[in-house]
Amino acid sequence: MSDSKWVYLFNEGSADQRNLLGGKGANLAEMTNAGLPVPPGFTITTDACNTYIELDRAYPDGLWEQTEAAMSKLEAELGRSFGASETPLLVSVRSGARFSMPGMMDTILNLGLTDESVEGLAREADPRFAYDCYRRLIHMFAHVVLGLDDEAFEDVLDNHKRKARVNNDYELTAEHLQSVVRDYKQIVLDQAGEPFPNDPREQLNKAITAVFDSWNNRRATDYRNHHGIPHNLGTAVNIQTMVYGNMGDDCATGVAFTRNPSTGEKKIFGEFLTNAQGEDVVAGVRDPQPIAGMSEVPSIATAYEQLQGIADRLEEHYRDMQDLEFTVQNGQLYMLQTRTGKRTGAAAVKIAIDMVDEGLIDQTEAVQRVEPDQLDQLLHPRIDADAEKNVFATGLPASPGAASGKVVFDADEAKEMADDGEVVILVRMETSPDDFHGMLAAQAVLTGRGGMTSHAAVVARGVGKPCVVGATSLTVDYEKQELRTGGVTVRKGEYITLDGASGEIMLGRVPTIEPEMSDDLSRLLSWTDQIRTLGVRANADTPDDAIKARELGAEGIGLCRTEHMFFAGERIWAMREMIVASTQEERIAALRKLEPMQREDFAGIFRAMDGYPVTIRTLDPPLHEFLPNTPEGIAELAGDMNISEKDLVTKITALEESNPMLGHRGCRLGVTDPEITEMQARAIFGAAMDCAREGITVHPEIMIPLVSDVRELRRQREVVDRVAELFFSENEFRVTYSVGTMIELPRACLTADEIAAEADFFSFGTNDLTQTTYGLSRDDAARFLHIYVDKAIYDDDPFQVLDQKGVGRLVEIGTDLGRKTKPDLKVGICGEHGGEPSSVAFCHNLKLDYVSASPFRVPIARLAAAQAAAGEHERDR
Amino acid sequence: MSDSKWVYLFNEGSADQRNLLGGKGANLAEMTNAGLPVPPGFTITTDACNTYIELDRAYPDGLWEQTEAAMSKLEAELGRSFGASETPLLVSVRSGARFSMPGMMDTILNLGLTDESVEGLAREADPRFAYDCYRRLIHMFAHVVLGLDDEAFEDVLDNHKRKARVNNDYELTAEHLQSVVRDYKQIVLDQAGEPFPNDPREQLNKAITAVFDSWNNRRATDYRNHHGIPHNLGTAVNIQTMVYGNMGDDCATGVAFTRNPSTGEKKIFGEFLTNAQGEDVVAGVRDPQPIAGMSEVPSIATAYEQLQGIADRLEEHYRDMQDLEFTVQNGQLYMLQTRTGKRTGAAAVKIAIDMVDEGLIDQTEAVQRVEPDQLDQLLHPRIDADAEKNVFATGLPASPGAASGKVVFDADEAKEMADDGEVVILVRMETSPDDFHGMLAAQAVLTGRGGMTSHAAVVARGVGKPCVVGATSLTVDYEKQELRTGGVTVRKGEYITLDGASGEIMLGRVPTIEPEMSDDLSRLLSWTDQIRTLGVRANADTPDDAIKARELGAEGIGLCRTEHMFFAGERIWAMREMIVASTQEERIAALRKLEPMQREDFAGIFRAMDGYPVTIRTLDPPLHEFLPNTPEGIAELAGDMNISEKDLVTKITALEESNPMLGHRGCRLGVTDPEITEMQARAIFGAAMDCAREGITVHPEIMIPLVSDVRELRRQREVVDRVAELFFSENEFRVTYSVGTMIELPRACLTADEIAAEADFFSFGTNDLTQTTYGLSRDDAARFLHIYVDKAIYDDDPFQVLDQKGVGRLVEIGTDLGRKTKPDLKVGICGEHGGEPSSVAFCHNLKLDYVSASPFRVPIARLAAAQAAAGEHERDR
Repeated sequence: MSDSKWVYLFNEGSADQRNLLGGKGANLAEMTNAGLPVPPGFTITTDACNTYIELDRAYPDGLWEQTEAAMSKLEAELGRSFGASETPLLVSVRSGARFSMPGMMDTILNLGLTDESVEGLAREADPRFAYDCYRRLIHMFAHVVLGLDDEAFEDVLDNHKRKARVNNDYELTAEHLQSVVRDYKQIVLDQAGEPFPNDPREQLNKAITAVFDSWNNRRATDYRNHHGIPHNLGTAVNIQTMVYGNMGDDCATGVAFTRNPSTGEKKIFGEFLTNAQGEDVVAGVRDPQPIAGMSEVPSIATAYEQLQGIADRLEEHYRDMQDLEFTVQNGQLYMLQTRTGKRTGAAAVKIAIDMVDEGLIDQTEAVQRVEPDQLDQLLHPRIDADAEKNVFATGLPASPGAASGKVVFDADEAKEMADDGEVVILVRMETSPDDFHGMLAAQAVLTGRGGMTSHAAVVARGVGKPCVVGATSLTVDYEKQELRTGGVTVRKGEYITLDGASGEIMLGRVPTIEPEMSDDLSRLLSWTDQIRTLGVRANADTPDDAIKARELGAEGIGLCRTEHMFFAGERIWAMREMIVASTQEERIAALRKLEPMQREDFAGIFRAMDGYPVTIRTLDPPLHEFLPNTPEGIAELAGDMNISEKDLVTKITALEESNPMLGHRGCRLGVTDPEITEMQARAIFGAAMDCAREGITVHPEIMIPLVSDVRELRRQREVVDRVAELFFSENEFRVTYSVGTMIELPRACLTADEIAAEADFFSFGTNDLTQTTYGLSRDDAARFLHIYVDKAIYDDDPFQVLDQKGVGRLVEIGTDLGRKTKPDLKVGICGEHGGEPSSVAFCHNLKLDYVSASPFRVPIARLAAAQAAAGEHERDR
Repeated sequence: MSDSKWVYLFNEGSADQRNLLGGKGANLAEMTNAGLPVPPGFTITTDACNTYIELDRAYPDGLWEQTEAAMSKLEAELGRSFGASETPLLVSVRSGARFSMPGMMDTILNLGLTDESVEGLAREADPRFAYDCYRRLIHMFAHVVLGLDDEAFEDVLDNHKRKARVNNDYELTAEHLQSVVRDYKQIVLDQAGEPFPNDPREQLNKAITAVFDSWNNRRATDYRNHHGIPHNLGTAVNIQTMVYGNMGDDCATGVAFTRNPSTGEKKIFGEFLTNAQGEDVVAGVRDPQPIAGMSEVPSIATAYEQLQGIADRLEEHYRDMQDLEFTVQNGQLYMLQTRTGKRTGAAAVKIAIDMVDEGLIDQTEAVQRVEPDQLDQLLHPRIDADAEKNVFATGLPASPGAASGKVVFDADEAKEMADDGEVVILVRMETSPDDFHGMLAAQAVLTGRGGMTSHAAVVARGVGKPCVVGATSLTVDYEKQELRTGGVTVRKGEYITLDGASGEIMLGRVPTIEPEMSDDLSRLLSWTDQIRTLGVRANADTPDDAIKARELGAEGIGLCRTEHMFFAGERIWAMREMIVASTQEERIAALRKLEPMQREDFAGIFRAMDGYPVTIRTLDPPLHEFLPNTPEGIAELAGDMNISEKDLVTKITALEESNPMLGHRGCRLGVTDPEITEMQARAIFGAAMDCAREGITVHPEIMIPLVSDVRELRRQREVVDRVAELFFSENEFRVTYSVGTMIELPRACLTADEIAAEADFFSFGTNDLTQTTYGLSRDDAARFLHIYVDKAIYDDDPFQVLDQKGVGRLVEIGTDLGRKTKPDLKVGICGEHGGEPSSVAFCHNLKLDYVSASPFRVPIARLAAAQAAAGEHERDR
């Protein structure tokens, strides 16, 4: 253990050591070795962090000694001395995990300042600056290491500003700040019960410990849960010589993206503040300037030119858009960080396309550059241009998409309301990492302060939520729970609508319209189709849905739920007559009414899907669902059927079930009442023959739901085959068709070898399979499932993300057994997981033939399937 | 194929060729070779039948040729000629499958009679006899081969008797019978559209075909389904020279058991009829005499002595009680059949015990001689001796046990009513094989005619239903749907009670009492305990149940359902207060009321199970189940809780679930409201410490229900362990305890390797596991499950018989994965399958540690476990 190398100087590492050095550390090493101006420093490895956690929060052997040795090297290189009263060495301490987690981990600047060394710094720079640094250190240290609230510190600062009759921090003099420092130290002593350490080595030791500990704090855990990042990676710690953007007007600090992270435009994009430290930009406390403005400030214009050159070099080096942090100290540019930049879906698509055109990457890489879930943003509703809208404020368009929701001012409350099924918009003056769970829970985020790179903006883009920031006319009154602007007051619980593409903020709920595919997106998706091996179909129940699905790239219908057709118009009446029929004759008479309507629907779908297969599921839900449940409905149906209301109520009651999900439904209906299946088969083959006669190529696939035993399928198949032969001989020509089953019960998976003997195809119904595998009703789970996900008892909502261990294992068993009987058995899935990227990858790995998703998730499935085919992509998130 | 030997003369076979020759053929061969007086004949093999079915009802190559050759040998041996007009050879044709299926298969006697040969027989015996045989042949042939109804034939016979002014068949003269034969032939021609074949070879050919075809008729299929006999065994056909019990007063026919099949008494038991053919005895048409009466008929007394000797020889030879058929022709005894005799549970136990004492079999064989399900009869309720009973008729006590039910007169109707959940008693003048499904569906069977070996009696004993036969004072009026006797009329749907042990028939429902174990049964079960390796526990929720379970041999409690305790008395009120509590404080206050009550219950169970483990399941059902659902109940609870009825209704409504089976229940309650688990743990450890202090040895096993993910168990286990440590430190001593989980969801089986890490034991809850594996609610399945079983879509009701392919596969996966993590993991099952013999055998084969069954099924489980350990028993059923 003591032989382990826990510490790497920046010039000892490289970009391919992300696992060991974290993303930030590896990139600092890479930039250092490329000769870019990086303040010297070193990285403590993720192994050190993991060992620390394993040892139950104790430093591994040798870590402290190696840290001290590295500090000595820094001291020697810079001719400075840690904690010394002359030319003191000051450092920053930052976390840096394998995957970048913006705002998630804690940072401490100016470490090494003590009552002695602050004087040295004062002598070297100036006293005001030195004490400003010192008070920042104490505040950050108190917050991050000692866990104290910010409030008391902010109050002290406000008091001093009030007493000094100034408005801004930078107007406080050195004397004021000395007094602030004294008060800050008293807060630490009072609240933490221990003094602020005057020993720089104790500061360093505690800061490293705090970074290690922050790996497991709530917001880091939340973030990893949300992004599916493993919890056992650990974080590295970067210790770097301080440089200052706040030493005067020839100093600045800023962040820049090598391309526009919102639109993808190829032009450096970012913001800066003169005479400020980096945290001021990210926190959104002061409103920063657009980066191009640097060229108009003579003292830093040269640094800007240099920055543009470095931006180009880094993008070429990393072959991806970069997110940079820099500081200008006395006109001299320093690079503090580079990493792959987060971007919106639209930007991700444009950058990927452009980089292919620029020859930087190939099409396969381009396909891997867009997160499938990001497409969701592009396919999200937009504000209807024709809608009436009452715009009461405008901010910066930080993350595109439109959303309406109830206003809420607190992250915890946002989460609670969302858990109760409410649709909310989180409104804050500014957000901090502590608000992350509330942002996730909200439909959209609005802030009164901050720029395009503020915390709110970066996080919202990362998770694909519409976001408007810096709506400076807004006042958020947390006390009264309302927001005000120019005479308008919006109270908690009232609806507003945000347009993250225009920055407009509207009263009430404004209608939105369905999106269309951009040319860029079409082009990218056409590449996915060349790469992927997994087919992508759509779940669609109507000709309109089928047309939309085909536009979005579906290669067939994987699930057409016939019952949805029965709810429309007069059909529901014929359906109800069928259900409450007293005799088989009455039932058949009612079915005869339904047949021509179904036939016309099927014909419409066949036409839309000309040349592609259409999988039609026979009647699935319990019949009780179709019956009226209001006195009026019952009276009407009784009159219609010429029976007494009392008799009708008796029939309806008789059809009630304790657990309808596990009751008389699916093929059980067809087995007990084969005339229903027969009617549906007649409608399917009638429509197929009609269409074939028109020249349409039809491939009907009849799917029998809820099979638990091969004998159910055999009986239902007999009905379908008999009807088919009848139509073929009547019409004197045939169409190809197949009969298969929805595998949605554990028993079907476990006996799939037998079932495959009667099935031309399997389609895993992972919605129901999840319900039965977990013994969990989707309708009832809402009450406690969020508690399970919050407490990490379940990794995800299993109805959203396929549970690979349990449900997925059954899919695997079912597929293997089915193909043991029939090696060329066609196998797909048609649950909602068919449009969820990790589930699509799982299906690809199991070598399924296709996934079927709702139409607007078809592009996501195409992309996810292509990425799965292109192999695991190691992207710096 | 043409080289196959399809036909075996009796002297070519032996008893170990049951698979090939069927039970009857093998035993006829065995008796022939043992030198017993068996009329010569031969057997067509089951292979021939199976090949016939495979060839789609065509004779296999060579079968007919081999049959004719065997017939020629019979002709030569006996000096008779098939179909000849002098000394004609007559044969019987009977089915004979691997397993005896009484009354299930069809028989034809007197085959070979034609218009010519009947004259030969008339000359040889007498004309009356010859024509009586001929009319019997035509009737049987018409019914069995041509599928005609009996009615027309019976009408003709009745008409002739009326015209001749006689009461009995045997009073008809040769001339009368000639006339009957003419009329019978006309019926055949009219109804079948073809004449009765006058060619004896055509008769034989068609009879063989009819036997083959009868393998797949409904009643045979029903019987095999009920008894779990495979459908692909096929039947053999036995063709045997006719002997006659109806040639005069020195002739007789009868059936005998070597011991009493109802009580097991070691004494020949049976019935005979003089001057009759065998079918007359079995069909119950004429009332036969007890067999001992043969000694009083001088002309057959010698034959009786001979029969007693043969009975002893056969019992010794086969080492089991035998069921014999014999005929005496002109004073000469012929043996027509021997087979292992069916018997009641009581007889099975007594015979097994006696044969061990006699040195015929050893204890392991004895244990294999009793069907586990037969014990159910012994443990079935008996009429309460103190009850008032209104006996309105008495019959023969054909099969023991007492039962009440609604009277029904038709087998189909009995089945329909039973499917609708009615409890029925089937009442018939006599039963035929066509009534089998109705007998199965009924609680008990009553007939007005027939003896102890009549169809009704034999079948009822076989399936363990209480049965009273030959209640001769009864008249069943099928027309009016009522039964009458001495002024009493009972209409369809009215209740009666049968006592199958006394033969009493009572009006209304008479109270019954729980049975006790006989000494014989105790002795047999003590042997099972030495043989079995599988533990047997009981499901018991109260101290009384626990005491009963221990008496019946349970080695612990495998499932104590704590929620049942909450329904009693004032507890339900505290429970309801807990459920509708608005705050955690209120909930805890209500739980505090429940704790002492639970503690006392647990203490009672621990005392009853001193030294044995007690598995206690924490709260499982959805809370809604505990709430009142009547206006009065709601008003009372609202008053009790001091809240408005409206508020209470709102709370109750909020707890309603669409699918409560898949809702907020099981450990999900404990995860969201850990104070419930905590209260239960406090009650368990409180009781355990109390009992331990009294000197009781306690082994509490706390079982967490409905776990889908190991993290649920981990959290619940933490609560239990924490409470345990609290009690141990307060009391300053410890008790051993374990914490495990009920594996009752597919996901738990599939992730059992993870779950085992936190579990000391697994108990498979196969009730819920069956529900989720099949996606089938037990409450709702009643509407269609019987259709599934009737149509053989499911082999059995999976809630009664463990589905080994699906649910069993999950049990296997769960056990294997669990033991992969913890090789010594204790594994049991506690669903209702724990008391079902085939399921117990399955558990034995999976090497589970124990099964847990309801108390009265504990003996069944002990026996089934011993039989499984003793290996597959090859018994002639």
